[in-house]
Amino acid sequence: MTIDSEILRSLRTNKAGSVSGADLSQRLNISRAAIWARIEEMRALGYDIEASPHRGYTLLDSPDLLHADDLLSRLDESQIIGRDIRVFQNTTSTNDIVEKLARDGVDEGAVVFAESQSLGRGRRGRQWTSPAGKGLWFSVLLRPSLTPQAVTKLTIASATALARAVRNVTTLSPEIKWPNDLLIAGKKISGVLTELAAELDHVRHVILGIGINVNMTESDFPKALRPTASSLRIQSGSLINRPEFAAEVLRQLDIDYKRVTNGHFHEVVEEWESLSCTLNREVEIQVGDRTIIGRAESLDQDGALLVRSQHGRLERVIGGDVSLRKTLAKDI
Amino acid sequence: MTIDSEILRSLRTNKAGSVSGADLSQRLNISRAAIWARIEEMRALGYDIEASPHRGYTLLDSPDLLHADDLLSRLDESQIIGRDIRVFQNTTSTNDIVEKLARDGVDEGAVVFAESQSLGRGRRGRQWTSPAGKGLWFSVLLRPSLTPQAVTKLTIASATALARAVRNVTTLSPEIKWPNDLLIAGKKISGVLTELAAELDHVRHVILGIGINVNMTESDFPKALRPTASSLRIQSGSLINRPEFAAEVLRQLDIDYKRVTNGHFHEVVEEWESLSCTLNREVEIQVGDRTIIGRAESLDQDGALLVRSQHGRLERVIGGDVSLRKTLAKDI
Repeated sequence: MTIDSEILRSLRTNKAGSVSGADLSQRLNISRAAIWARIEEMRALGYDIEASPHRGYTLLDSPDLLHADDLLSRLDESQIIGRDIRVFQNTTSTNDIVEKLARDGVDEGAVVFAESQSLGRGRRGRQWTSPAGKGLWFSVLLRPSLTPQAVTKLTIASATALARAVRNVTTLSPEIKWPNDLLIAGKKISGVLTELAAELDHVRHVILGIGINVNMTESDFPKALRPTASSLRIQSGSLINRPEFAAEVLRQLDIDYKRVTNGHFHEVVEEWESLSCTLNREVEIQVGDRTIIGRAESLDQDGALLVRSQHGRLERVIGGDVSLRKTLAKDI
Repeated sequence: MTIDSEILRSLRTNKAGSVSGADLSQRLNISRAAIWARIEEMRALGYDIEASPHRGYTLLDSPDLLHADDLLSRLDESQIIGRDIRVFQNTTSTNDIVEKLARDGVDEGAVVFAESQSLGRGRRGRQWTSPAGKGLWFSVLLRPSLTPQAVTKLTIASATALARAVRNVTTLSPEIKWPNDLLIAGKKISGVLTELAAELDHVRHVILGIGINVNMTESDFPKALRPTASSLRIQSGSLINRPEFAAEVLRQLDIDYKRVTNGHFHEVVEEWESLSCTLNREVEIQVGDRTIIGRAESLDQDGALLVRSQHGRLERVIGGDVSLRKTLAKDI
């Protein structure tokens, strides 16, 4: 914990709503003058902190910016995901940064946010639009004890976690399109790019690259995406406080990561299945050059999708582009 | 192809055994003086090249050193593996170098050799002894169109290729211990470390890190390894010409890589099964914290080992440490 995050945590969690300089000074073991200097710096960043001779410091408002100390101050210290948070104003791609951290041996749980990405990417090198200040573009470093085969579990778990975070912070109820796109009213709100480095039988690290369209308006999307992409703001009609939402996302990701690593993946699967708009539907999945057409039946124990093909065969699909087929006349 | 590799190729493949400076000059489109200068440099490296006014240049002997141009000159230009060869005198680990090349977008088929490695590694971060000038320590960059699940195929294919290379260059007939250790007289001659970078459903690149104990004597091995490790020299009683052997290894790896990528993996499996000392044996496999005991029955279509456990269940194993169990009294 840094001093700034301790101060913000104290201001947020103190029941009286205010904390005196003397209290903070004692708790953090630095002078009252040093506390005052930190508060002044936070004010310069946009934090509205009132100082009263009687009540001490009161946090009236926080700016909508991603600030590592602020995010840290909102999380429980027992969390793995988010125990190390770094924020960049602009990067090529947050996955690139986290890959460097991974190679440098940084512990799992490190999270890198960027206010904007110049080369944000989706699966298979596709572009991901990430305009400044409008979304959450971030990557999480994990070092789970899993085989490469079982990394699908993390992909499934990222979807349930993101869906809960959206429900907890907004009035919206996203559906999940396999494996982990969140959809609201049929439009894509978020996507996850899962990258891994492994030996044959065990994973060295996994990087979850997550993009969530938070406060984007229609005009923030390239024209070609407007029919299929949307944001929480467009769908809910109100601006979302990004730091508050970011902290909730990290909290929920931490919960589901622990469900995977502690052997409770079946709970994740149940939740995923209840939110899925893919199961029990006719789907068309593009896997490389191959197209699989059939009925999505369930997830298997590793989170792969089991599809009953037209020929009656059960196919196990671990990735690809799913499209839901229009309901056939005979099904009505 | 470089000029040096073209010269060496000409000297090696010309039926008369010799090539005139005029011929080389015309073929390579450089002056006879430039040819002479190249020849002088090669002589300085240890190439015994005779120059006769009548017959031209004759290659009498090559030094036992790894030299990129020499290796290139021995390979067919249609090979994928080895079309880009780099030799380092000393590195931490050739896999590290190839990982950097992979990130820089270098094409598949690049091979990095090192005369010695200071941090040569085996699976799960284990040390790999790689003394200078005594073995082949190298890594191959591949970019196959495979799922992470199917990378086991490459591991299996590397073993059949190495076994053929040893048979073609020595009088030895190695066995394969699953997945890809070569054994001679029960002792380990080579090992392969397979590392991959992937998205969930497709591989970005695979690095095969290969170590072959070629000309090591007993004293080149740490004492602890002597009961279980050996070299081609110890087993055959004669020194192996490393560049000649290295070229043969790359040729055979190329053949089996193409068998995998062209849909002929079943041929590799058949060959692997005929050389295996693991199949139809009672085995004990350490997979992380778990021990699987049972009878190794066969490889599945991706190259995973199918083991019939003591409880009659068929287990699919993709990695781990295999030990062969002593034949039980009841089996005799």
